[in-house]
Amino acid sequence: MSINQSDYIRDIVSAFKKLPGIGERSARRLAFYILSQNESVAYSLANAIKDGKQNIKLCKNCFNLSGEDFCPICKNTSRNSKLLCVVENPEIIYVFEKSGNFNGFYHVLHGLINPLEGITPSDIKLKELAFRVEQGGFEEIILALNPNSNGEATMVYIQKILSPYNVHITALARGIPIGSDLEYVDKDTLSEAINYRKNFG
Amino acid sequence: MSINQSDYIRDIVSAFKKLPGIGERSARRLAFYILSQNESVAYSLANAIKDGKQNIKLCKNCFNLSGEDFCPICKNTSRNSKLLCVVENPEIIYVFEKSGNFNGFYHVLHGLINPLEGITPSDIKLKELAFRVEQGGFEEIILALNPNSNGEATMVYIQKILSPYNVHITALARGIPIGSDLEYVDKDTLSEAINYRKNFG
Repeated sequence: MSINQSDYIRDIVSAFKKLPGIGERSARRLAFYILSQNESVAYSLANAIKDGKQNIKLCKNCFNLSGEDFCPICKNTSRNSKLLCVVENPEIIYVFEKSGNFNGFYHVLHGLINPLEGITPSDIKLKELAFRVEQGGFEEIILALNPNSNGEATMVYIQKILSPYNVHITALARGIPIGSDLEYVDKDTLSEAINYRKNFG
Repeated sequence: MSINQSDYIRDIVSAFKKLPGIGERSARRLAFYILSQNESVAYSLANAIKDGKQNIKLCKNCFNLSGEDFCPICKNTSRNSKLLCVVENPEIIYVFEKSGNFNGFYHVLHGLINPLEGITPSDIKLKELAFRVEQGGFEEIILALNPNSNGEATMVYIQKILSPYNVHITALARGIPIGSDLEYVDKDTLSEAINYRKNFG
């Protein structure tokens, strides 16, 4: 044990450091904060994480995070069943819903094709996407993937696998700055991008 | 439930938001990350927090965070028993130890006198400090408190309550920029400040 620091503190620091955007100093600050505050801060966080991890599963239809077999969006019969929006991860659904400008359904890929990291088409929910489109009903597939090379590669691949089906494939309008991250786009820019989506390919 | 978001996700987000430096967006990103990764990320964090909170207590001598009744620093007989360094919180001990330029003992106040927030001398470990000094043995008390008005007020108060005892009271050299936070001072600057500590008052 270095620097006379308790193993308990070191364990918290190293667990926090595994999270995105949290470095050594932030992790240490969080650990000391949690240990200095009253018990509710520590236990509410620890319990929320455990409960969430234990109970959250993937929606069997769209692969959104869900407390039940099917997510509230898939179970909502008042949404537009002709529109399907393809997203990289469940957090993107959150930002879409927050923009209030989309009332179709979603399909979560859980990743993008990424040759450099060895993520191939079979590693993400592409077969499942083709299966849903094959069942019929959708008229338009909106590709809402991050505007980077992996996003582009994935969009081209989707265009190819959906070509047998009679669906119109669109992509978000490029009002979104290249190189940015969809999680951090403000909701007005996102609304614009939804409104001005255009044909892909 | 707003925006079709699961209560589990909302609970994680709201627990993260209680931590310092974590806002709504960071909290959401962390929650989605934790729920998307394999179980070990979630459980190692949740367990580290619970185990730490359950097992970490305050050292009965210096009030550092410790897994046992007395912390490793207080139990270390090879340190300089004539030097006592007074700090605001346990994280400051960590940065001092990291600087490698101090081998005396510590006393953690767990706060600073702060009239605006109603924190009075009896709310922090000042009586305990006077008691330790009263037992004798210390020749020099180094006040290592943040250079702001609460730190100054606390240093003046300590000077007053320690005046009956035959100890030399010093304060960290002001190589530390005013208004900064001790947690974020680099270790070389901190070493300088330890080397050039000067008489207080």
